[in-house]
Amino acid sequence: MSKQDIEIAQSTEMLSVDEIARKLSIDTSTLEHYGKYKAKVDFDALHTTEKKNGKLILVTAINPTPAGEGKTTMSVGLGDALQKIGKKAAIALREPSLGPVFGVKGGAAGGGHAQVIPMEDINLHFTGDLHAIGAANNLVAAMIDNHIYHGNELDIDPRRIMWRRAMDMNDRQLRSIVSGIGAKTNGMPREGGFDITVASEIMAVLCLSHSLDEMKEKLSRCLIGYTFNNEPIKLGDINAQGAAAALLKDALKPNLVQTLEHTPVFIHGGPFANIAHGCNSLLATKTALSHADYVVTEAGFGADLGAEKFIDIKCRLGNISPDAVVIVATLRALKMHGGVKKTDLSKENNEGLKAGIPNLLKHIENIKKTFSLPAVVAINAFPDDTQEELDILKETIQAAGSRVVQSNVWAEGGNGGIELAEEAVRLCDQDTEMTFAYELTDSIETKVDKIVQSVYGGRGSEWSVAAKRTAKRLTALGYADLPICMAKTQYSLSDDAKALGRPTDFLVNIRELSVSAGAGFIVVMTGNIMRMPGLPKVPAAEQVDVDNLGKITGLF
Amino acid sequence: MSKQDIEIAQSTEMLSVDEIARKLSIDTSTLEHYGKYKAKVDFDALHTTEKKNGKLILVTAINPTPAGEGKTTMSVGLGDALQKIGKKAAIALREPSLGPVFGVKGGAAGGGHAQVIPMEDINLHFTGDLHAIGAANNLVAAMIDNHIYHGNELDIDPRRIMWRRAMDMNDRQLRSIVSGIGAKTNGMPREGGFDITVASEIMAVLCLSHSLDEMKEKLSRCLIGYTFNNEPIKLGDINAQGAAAALLKDALKPNLVQTLEHTPVFIHGGPFANIAHGCNSLLATKTALSHADYVVTEAGFGADLGAEKFIDIKCRLGNISPDAVVIVATLRALKMHGGVKKTDLSKENNEGLKAGIPNLLKHIENIKKTFSLPAVVAINAFPDDTQEELDILKETIQAAGSRVVQSNVWAEGGNGGIELAEEAVRLCDQDTEMTFAYELTDSIETKVDKIVQSVYGGRGSEWSVAAKRTAKRLTALGYADLPICMAKTQYSLSDDAKALGRPTDFLVNIRELSVSAGAGFIVVMTGNIMRMPGLPKVPAAEQVDVDNLGKITGLF
Repeated sequence: MSKQDIEIAQSTEMLSVDEIARKLSIDTSTLEHYGKYKAKVDFDALHTTEKKNGKLILVTAINPTPAGEGKTTMSVGLGDALQKIGKKAAIALREPSLGPVFGVKGGAAGGGHAQVIPMEDINLHFTGDLHAIGAANNLVAAMIDNHIYHGNELDIDPRRIMWRRAMDMNDRQLRSIVSGIGAKTNGMPREGGFDITVASEIMAVLCLSHSLDEMKEKLSRCLIGYTFNNEPIKLGDINAQGAAAALLKDALKPNLVQTLEHTPVFIHGGPFANIAHGCNSLLATKTALSHADYVVTEAGFGADLGAEKFIDIKCRLGNISPDAVVIVATLRALKMHGGVKKTDLSKENNEGLKAGIPNLLKHIENIKKTFSLPAVVAINAFPDDTQEELDILKETIQAAGSRVVQSNVWAEGGNGGIELAEEAVRLCDQDTEMTFAYELTDSIETKVDKIVQSVYGGRGSEWSVAAKRTAKRLTALGYADLPICMAKTQYSLSDDAKALGRPTDFLVNIRELSVSAGAGFIVVMTGNIMRMPGLPKVPAAEQVDVDNLGKITGLF
Repeated sequence: MSKQDIEIAQSTEMLSVDEIARKLSIDTSTLEHYGKYKAKVDFDALHTTEKKNGKLILVTAINPTPAGEGKTTMSVGLGDALQKIGKKAAIALREPSLGPVFGVKGGAAGGGHAQVIPMEDINLHFTGDLHAIGAANNLVAAMIDNHIYHGNELDIDPRRIMWRRAMDMNDRQLRSIVSGIGAKTNGMPREGGFDITVASEIMAVLCLSHSLDEMKEKLSRCLIGYTFNNEPIKLGDINAQGAAAALLKDALKPNLVQTLEHTPVFIHGGPFANIAHGCNSLLATKTALSHADYVVTEAGFGADLGAEKFIDIKCRLGNISPDAVVIVATLRALKMHGGVKKTDLSKENNEGLKAGIPNLLKHIENIKKTFSLPAVVAINAFPDDTQEELDILKETIQAAGSRVVQSNVWAEGGNGGIELAEEAVRLCDQDTEMTFAYELTDSIETKVDKIVQSVYGGRGSEWSVAAKRTAKRLTALGYADLPICMAKTQYSLSDDAKALGRPTDFLVNIRELSVSAGAGFIVVMTGNIMRMPGLPKVPAAEQVDVDNLGKITGLF
């Protein structure tokens, strides 16, 4: 499967990005070309006369399992299918990080016949956004340490600098370091470390900004540390926001590419889905919405994290809302939620399936009740799916008031998603009024409890002493009105990665809190969060090669 | 002066990069556009039917002083002047690093009316080459530590890893670090550090490669460390060359931009001029030579380092040679070499000037005698230069067989360099047969002594115990045939930064050696070499800003 992706991608003849832009009536003079098939769309494109107000379709999923769901593939295929049934469609997705590309996950541009191209470029440097974010992040870091080195006028406590350095790489060796050692001229010895670039606050800031001015304002507000006197130090205090914004001026512009079937795709921004909100940039979504009738977008992880943050953080801030939600699942993954072993997933197992369906049901319930949005279940077809399994699923879901549509976009592209596209269009025609899981005026603790109760299905939360103390401090510092960004395992509705299916009657353990004051949310950590992944024993990088003509192999 | 640069640049109407390419008869289908004014030129452009064999003019300088020489400005102005007198001209320059841009030096795209544009882009991310080099470098680093973490099959000694991480930033805090600490899952604790990206061996490899295959081959040969048994470990041993080359596939292609007067400029590659060879890529120079009649290029620091390495490393490897050499100086800088204080440089001081001229004379001698090339001295005009000073200089230089041309390209652009252009063209018409300072078959020690004697004007070299031992080991490992890359202070012909003018009868102290086995040279260090600069107390970054329309200010 995986090896074919790059071959399929490379054998497809692309349209020029100008032709792709014209499909959306985007003035090609607002494009900045990166070769023939990639372009950045200038902010002007948001304000063209032909401004539309497209329908937004959010693709989310059940809690992920090792069986795989194929959310991105489904998003791409749905976009292609919408185009196929004659709709002016666009897709908005996250940018892949180099870390996973060279680690285990491989590329992140869909798969099979539902891919975004040029996939090699998208999976490697693309238009340089991640490098720009890393550079801006690390300029700020250098300026902080430089300030301390040259006399520390602001009285920054080197033990309490929260601003970490960033690298777009899976490099566990850099998670925890002591820097500034060896000589007086090498800085001030202190502990620190690197996060993968997509985990940096600047990534989240970029994804939640509508303009350069707004981004600069958010950058200025980033909390970078504390003084010896426990006073907060912000990025603006070291006067780094101008240079950081200058480094980010092009990165803020959405990137336009295409699917294998030439559907326009905006790929822009890719914040972590645990310590950040996990979806593509507001600007990409809005640019798509202002030029297409139907926009398909995606949120990270399962709906408990991805859709919740999409709605409670991104939609709230950007004043947008989805018109329909697609929940992706596979029969295999549902069987895993029902306790079936990974090695047995190919076998028909109706009881296992029935035991796993409640995970899906809970996500449907959340979308429909908590967020008041219409939902359809999209089943990514596998060859060993049986009709009886599918019928069981359809019946159960129908009873819950939603439809199940099997789609086969991986093998057939847009043609494999026609039924799903038609159902999505039907849902978009309904009148909806999105609701949030909590109000901004709720206290930090209340917000968390509301998420746990109305989204995860748990009883409430249990707070560590540290978390309680931090909540108090953040409230005193005036951050209590910010939305919450839950950092929780993606594998379970609860905070216990092993509690598959639909756990009930659980408490979520709140370990610690931190504030992303620039991005504008409070991160609530329910366990140890990995901000810098490592490479596996045999990294995918060892397979990657390029020939003398520049043709890349081994990406998947 | 500095503040004006960005204003002049931003007020100039640019030609499209297609028009610039057409000036050189470069098929625009070989361009990969980065916006309207920047493009990468595909390797194909090297092999077009209209292939020329242009004349190469090397711009170098006296030993730099705080008074400044303006080598890049002169190179740009000379290119403009050549175009002005009707020649098909191109310029090949190094890419600026973000570090100095945000530190003290400011941008590196010329100045005044002799600049390369778009200067903001060139000084910030440009086409992403430096980011790609950093990513490739750091992927290799992550793969080395990952190999050790997962069992260390190759038996790599973590205390003897020579491959450092890279960042395109002035960040002294990262010079020396302990990484891999805090938990078993965080890697193997060891000492290491970061170099600024331009100091990485990958930068040198890229600048000395003619093709992707050659680059991959060179990458494989990079020496990354030793086993516990003292056996060398190469980059190819951890199988990182394919992925690294894939990351570098676009970075290897030269970038085409323009001057304020629309002369084509290739800006590509920028290796350090101490631990590397300090000039733009071979591919950029060769692409320029195959499309222009006259190509102006530049080498880092003074001629003792820059021109020597340009000839003994780059020309030797690439089988090219300059047809003429321009040695840049200012009367102010010559006076500094003559012992005049920085605060007194504006005053006429004939004795001071006379005392400083020997520095220039030695460089002329080197170019003419050691390297058998014709040379002209270009004086960058300053308002306080007097006619008497200029006459003194002209007379002395004429006696040494070269001409002095005063030029004023900073204030007048190409018009200010007409006389210099005409003299350069005249020199190019002479028959020359370039000679090297040493032969590759000489021993390491002999090569160093020949450079010291025939280029620096010293008596010989004095080797530390460590350097002697390393020379022996490198010889045993088969590296003795490589050219030498001297890492010496740029401020003096000797290894004593304070010995201005023309020191004589000195010994150069050889502290240590290292091999850049992939790039293909032995680095000979005469003192402590800074591979990661720091920021000044008030970094230039604090002045940089961008407005809501994307207009950048504060770069200079």
